[in-house]
Amino acid sequence: MKIARSIAELDISGVVGLVPTMGALHDGHRSLFRVGRAENDVLVASIFVNPAQFDQPADLAGYPSDDQRDLEIAEEEGVDVLFAPTAAEMYPAGFGTWVDLDDTGAEGTSRPGHFRGVATVCVKLFNIVQPRRAYFGQKDAQQAAVVRRVVRDLNLDIEIRVLPTIRDKDGLAISSRNVQLSPDQRTQALVLPRALAAGAETYTQGGDAVAATRSAFNGLTPEYVEILEFDDLTVLASALRVGSTRLIDNVLLKGDLS
Amino acid sequence: MKIARSIAELDISGVVGLVPTMGALHDGHRSLFRVGRAENDVLVASIFVNPAQFDQPADLAGYPSDDQRDLEIAEEEGVDVLFAPTAAEMYPAGFGTWVDLDDTGAEGTSRPGHFRGVATVCVKLFNIVQPRRAYFGQKDAQQAAVVRRVVRDLNLDIEIRVLPTIRDKDGLAISSRNVQLSPDQRTQALVLPRALAAGAETYTQGGDAVAATRSAFNGLTPEYVEILEFDDLTVLASALRVGSTRLIDNVLLKGDLS
Repeated sequence: MKIARSIAELDISGVVGLVPTMGALHDGHRSLFRVGRAENDVLVASIFVNPAQFDQPADLAGYPSDDQRDLEIAEEEGVDVLFAPTAAEMYPAGFGTWVDLDDTGAEGTSRPGHFRGVATVCVKLFNIVQPRRAYFGQKDAQQAAVVRRVVRDLNLDIEIRVLPTIRDKDGLAISSRNVQLSPDQRTQALVLPRALAAGAETYTQGGDAVAATRSAFNGLTPEYVEILEFDDLTVLASALRVGSTRLIDNVLLKGDLS
Repeated sequence: MKIARSIAELDISGVVGLVPTMGALHDGHRSLFRVGRAENDVLVASIFVNPAQFDQPADLAGYPSDDQRDLEIAEEEGVDVLFAPTAAEMYPAGFGTWVDLDDTGAEGTSRPGHFRGVATVCVKLFNIVQPRRAYFGQKDAQQAAVVRRVVRDLNLDIEIRVLPTIRDKDGLAISSRNVQLSPDQRTQALVLPRALAAGAETYTQGGDAVAATRSAFNGLTPEYVEILEFDDLTVLASALRVGSTRLIDNVLLKGDLS
């Protein structure tokens, strides 16, 4: 595996698959790497904790990282090139161009500027790496939808592949942020996937999925519960703060990811 | 010359030069075509009156066009592919992604949203046509600087070539908008290049270029007179409304275009 810590060190040819990550790699990333490995000649993983997509400085400062473990996981999963640029190269002095989106709702409302940061860094990474395909997890459903919209609106010739959420045995969606949870908080966090499952069940019975989800939070208050429509996909999405950790999750209501 | 009226009709290979235009082609465009013709295998001209960059609906509605003349000029100058997409294809229903810039000043202040529209359509055209080089005129100096900044910030692999302003014998910068001027207005418009020349002369003598320019407008009030710094280039720029026609012009103070 080649490690490139600057744009100049990249030297890629062939059909490229890109998995953009913020590091702290886990089984969710592994599933993206495996499909990306199978579908492309060259598999590139980027690791860049993108300051532009954090609306809270403390959240950026506390974002987990484990460089040694990231290298091992990327190597194990057959990543060809690990691209880990510096913030100084991605956002040099005088930087001032942003890819911005109209009305995104849900995460876009809860985290002002978040999707602007995501869209901007994705366009930059796409232009630098020039992948044929890029891989995102369903857990960040709205992020995937935003990236698809950017690709379509700006006429980028890239296929955005979205793969199913990977969950721990107890049902919690795997996320880099889960390591921030104490054992008690982790137990508490399970209300998020359970409430969404209850909402989805109510939806299939023709009931009010949002109300059912809210009442299944057992007195905890989610940041939002929303039904989101993306092209031919409908998801029930929610965000919950547990201690200082913010978790998001969603379940499919209509359509599939293929 | 091939004419493509949709993205699907484009089929380009080789080293591509792109001249993005809004049609109403004139000698300024000819000079871009000639250099683009010499420097690339394939010369593409786009003709698209981009609604997103007009802040005034009346200005968009009144923008000059002469399709037959455009075809003749493009053919004469050796354009290989004329790309003239529809607004419905460039901005379909549900479009909502914008390339936006921090603080642009001058034209950016006078025409809110103008450079957002320019940057967005340029990124779209660059992604569709995938040129090695794109050509802009010095008359729209700030536009050229904005596009250079977008290319740099978003890591696009395109060389932005800026070529000198072409002027009529009387000194007026050639512009598609000049056809909107009555003979009297055209005479009046000459105050713009003359005031800028007076400002540049004062600048070389160490004086206040902006004040000198303003006082050389002979009682007319320009929208702005500003010294603009772009990387290693300094220009003195101004905009003047003559009747309902808005004209811009600028002169180099420091640096050169090569």
